[in-house]
Amino acid sequence: MSVMMRLTLNSSAEEQLQKQAETHRLQLTQKMSKPFKKLIDVSSGDIQSTGMKPITFVRQVLAGCLCPDLLLSDTLPHDVQLRVQKLLEHCDGGSVGAYAESSGMAYVQRTVAKYISARDGGLSSNPAHIFITSGSLRAITVVLKLLAQSGGSFQTGVMVPVPLPNALPHVLERVGSLPLFYCLREEAGWSIEREELHRAIQASKDHCCPRAIYISNPSNPTGHVQSRESIKDVIRFAAQNNLFLLVDEVYQDTVFGLGSEFVSYKKVLAEMGPPYSNTVQLASVHSLSNGIMGECGLRAGYMELVNVDESVMLFAEALLCGDISTPITGQIALDVMADPPRPGNQSYFLYKQEMESRLNTLKCNVHRSTEFFNSLPDFHCPPVQSGIFIYPHLKFSPAALTYAQGLGVEAGLWYCERLLQEEGVCVGVNRCVGEAVTHNSPPGSCWHLRLCVLMPPDALEEVLCHLQAFHCRFLSKL
Amino acid sequence: MSVMMRLTLNSSAEEQLQKQAETHRLQLTQKMSKPFKKLIDVSSGDIQSTGMKPITFVRQVLAGCLCPDLLLSDTLPHDVQLRVQKLLEHCDGGSVGAYAESSGMAYVQRTVAKYISARDGGLSSNPAHIFITSGSLRAITVVLKLLAQSGGSFQTGVMVPVPLPNALPHVLERVGSLPLFYCLREEAGWSIEREELHRAIQASKDHCCPRAIYISNPSNPTGHVQSRESIKDVIRFAAQNNLFLLVDEVYQDTVFGLGSEFVSYKKVLAEMGPPYSNTVQLASVHSLSNGIMGECGLRAGYMELVNVDESVMLFAEALLCGDISTPITGQIALDVMADPPRPGNQSYFLYKQEMESRLNTLKCNVHRSTEFFNSLPDFHCPPVQSGIFIYPHLKFSPAALTYAQGLGVEAGLWYCERLLQEEGVCVGVNRCVGEAVTHNSPPGSCWHLRLCVLMPPDALEEVLCHLQAFHCRFLSKL
Repeated sequence: MSVMMRLTLNSSAEEQLQKQAETHRLQLTQKMSKPFKKLIDVSSGDIQSTGMKPITFVRQVLAGCLCPDLLLSDTLPHDVQLRVQKLLEHCDGGSVGAYAESSGMAYVQRTVAKYISARDGGLSSNPAHIFITSGSLRAITVVLKLLAQSGGSFQTGVMVPVPLPNALPHVLERVGSLPLFYCLREEAGWSIEREELHRAIQASKDHCCPRAIYISNPSNPTGHVQSRESIKDVIRFAAQNNLFLLVDEVYQDTVFGLGSEFVSYKKVLAEMGPPYSNTVQLASVHSLSNGIMGECGLRAGYMELVNVDESVMLFAEALLCGDISTPITGQIALDVMADPPRPGNQSYFLYKQEMESRLNTLKCNVHRSTEFFNSLPDFHCPPVQSGIFIYPHLKFSPAALTYAQGLGVEAGLWYCERLLQEEGVCVGVNRCVGEAVTHNSPPGSCWHLRLCVLMPPDALEEVLCHLQAFHCRFLSKL
Repeated sequence: MSVMMRLTLNSSAEEQLQKQAETHRLQLTQKMSKPFKKLIDVSSGDIQSTGMKPITFVRQVLAGCLCPDLLLSDTLPHDVQLRVQKLLEHCDGGSVGAYAESSGMAYVQRTVAKYISARDGGLSSNPAHIFITSGSLRAITVVLKLLAQSGGSFQTGVMVPVPLPNALPHVLERVGSLPLFYCLREEAGWSIEREELHRAIQASKDHCCPRAIYISNPSNPTGHVQSRESIKDVIRFAAQNNLFLLVDEVYQDTVFGLGSEFVSYKKVLAEMGPPYSNTVQLASVHSLSNGIMGECGLRAGYMELVNVDESVMLFAEALLCGDISTPITGQIALDVMADPPRPGNQSYFLYKQEMESRLNTLKCNVHRSTEFFNSLPDFHCPPVQSGIFIYPHLKFSPAALTYAQGLGVEAGLWYCERLLQEEGVCVGVNRCVGEAVTHNSPPGSCWHLRLCVLMPPDALEEVLCHLQAFHCRFLSKL
């Protein structure tokens, strides 16, 4: 089975699970009897659905912008009031109910540019090259559409990692681009390897025109953080092969691994100097939904374009314009993400406390769940450096594999379906591809589960409790 | 010049104006000297940008949902608090920061279904057939994509009126459907005429496959409201020609013409009985942006599908899912639009007062601006029955026409560009097509301006003052 076929399979396995989860959820609301009382979905990065509280300052600013009458009393802190006034000054008609420019509110573009510049040690960022979108996927779609439109007679190929973020295959399908898979090496901590990039692009050249490479760094779902050297390697590879660099950096604020550090592709590109720094085309995306903010329901993100032609940017604007302008509420939350309270502001202490507590919860939960999986037979979970997922490896025993084959189902999917049916826990699932599988294990025996672990610690314990009970039953019945 | 070419021209004329308006706006922020102090854009239906205040209850509910701590004091009225609690109960994790189902929050779907049912005199509405989208254009795009995908080898044709809502040509272009224009008759108050529908579909049959008819009722931009009989005519026409009825009913809450009444296509379809009522496929769209709510920045609308196959609805869901889920803030505002405060509720009086005052302002402004245009030489503005636009007819004198031709520009565009440059007022503009032009006037002499007039009365006076000054200067210089 080719890598591509397996991935199609994985994607549809995930969809099957999601559909089953939705059915269970509906049946629970209809009071249908189940072995569990509630459905817990840890397959996506939707942290507020599993109980994480929003950051107070974000919500206070939004409440003030929506209901400026709140500024007439001292219900909201002083710095919230000032921020609300500032933001409303930059809304048409002084209201969040008016439309904004298709590429986003100019004020928010400037805030984001300042944030990027500060993050990258003072490297300049042009607000006109920042596009506010309703989420990172939307930004990625716009770039891929631009590339597909500018292609010749060959189909546009886009290099994507394996494993990859679970929503990505759909985006590629929708824009009509061909995914060209490059495998990340689990044995090397999921790093990107130069030889594998070369293999993947060579293998594709007779049937499509490779035009872009998609990178997820910090990586979803593996949690790997690229080193500066690794980023340089990828940039050189992109330059050699004339590829557009599409970099998903939505987990840039959730790097916690000892010795790991987030460095942006943009910064490394600038450091490399010409010809790289002034020729390699780059789009970097970030969002409000992912990582530490976790405001999925507000729908906002941004992308910054580097070394991209002005005319192409006009097309990007037209694509965004033709579609849906980002909700102003989301843009306001993005402004707060990019420009949080500072020392001396009334809200600073609470904001700092909430963010530190959140990062601390994340670290503890990653540690706790990594240890948990390493204590379960057949599971192996290496340490994670970043992100909000863990990605444990599950190697089915010959007995389990034979059993699943007897039922005519894929072992990993069968495991997760039963976990969902019996315990009400929905996890993500991917079949392993790459060296480890082909050399050491029978086909179909190696899988990964994907679990978002950024949730209140007691909620995590509940999930682990279900997993433990299920896995023990699973093993005992073989 | 064919109707289609002219429309393309109109659409790009609008775009040119919009771009110029944006440039002026930017230059004003850069303190560049202009003959005007601010730019007033009345070309779109963005009523909050020109100073209309939002409805208090909507904003209070949103503030409470975003910042539930506000419920700890009595800052918000009691019924707002109850609504907030109810809505948050139906958000995953009790937070508006979590994702919702791709077709919308089930709770909001139910609220909308109840609203539709009450509007249509008790006719049933199935929540599963309601799709919450980020605006009416998004809903229309989804339907058109579905139709285009299900087409055969011929290109999908979609019948659209002339004049038509200014954003529609782009949507058709994006989904790759061919617009088949049917002209509305200005002399008959912009009604839809059976003979014209037949002419338009016959003319198209050799080069495309007509699959849908788009209707705007109450009509944007003409303000015409269809009678029950006229709706029946269109339904019969759709049935005869096996067309999907795509009905844009976003101005259903802003009908004010004496003797005019909004009746939904769905209701008339049901009244007609079989075979119409159980075969004609219908999508009706409504939104938070248009009409009386005017919450453009919150991005939400809905569509209801009638007589549409379950399998097609699954596709619709997949299309919505693949794209962007509607922001939860917008969905909450939609819930309030569909289920406003009732008599006895603490917020009822204020809500009623605000809505009545808004409708009253609209009626007065329509009356005032209609009289105004009828008092200007070369303008003619028939009474309007609904909507938030007026659509005055401007017939250029031979002298003006000769002057414009000498400059090599279209007279209407030239007029509007000068209005923008000299007074800072941006209006919509359409070249007339149809009988009136071909029979009585030289080509290029008849145009319509499109102005949104739902704004505070003093803001309207300011606009009219600019228009008056400009038009007098314009005439005097010929």
